[in-house]
Amino acid sequence: MEQRSEAHAALGRAIRELRAERAVSQEELASSIGMHRTYLGGIERGERNPSFTNITRIAASLDIQPSDLLARGEKLLSG
Amino acid sequence: MEQRSEAHAALGRAIRELRAERAVSQEELASSIGMHRTYLGGIERGERNPSFTNITRIAASLDIQPSDLLARGEKLLSG
Repeated sequence: MEQRSEAHAALGRAIRELRAERAVSQEELASSIGMHRTYLGGIERGERNPSFTNITRIAASLDIQPSDLLARGEKLLSG
Repeated sequence: MEQRSEAHAALGRAIRELRAERAVSQEELASSIGMHRTYLGGIERGERNPSFTNITRIAASLDIQPSDLLARGEKLLSG
């Protein structure tokens, strides 16, 4: 599947990096929010277009505000 | 249609407030990003669950970073 956009890819990288910092596996994060692991993988690769609901669930599970999660992606995009 | 959550309602209020600050109508904002006006209305009322793509399009049209748009919603939610 193709990347949706640079912004989607950057958001996905931000999620993956935060997940690594928290030492949480893709499987653990996905199951904590009732999402399939492969779908989370698609979000992390920038191939999926997560809804606001899923962005807020991922952020909550990673213990970060949704706005801060997006800011991390924007920083990767501009950096 | 029902509100999705308090967070969706707060994001919608943030969009509506910013739109008012920019003096842009619902019709103008929606058409600038190829969205139907009634769908934007549903997002502003917290009834719709916008995708990351639509959040970034709305933010760009309102000349704000997506993270700052979400932060405005979070501030309304906590305030």
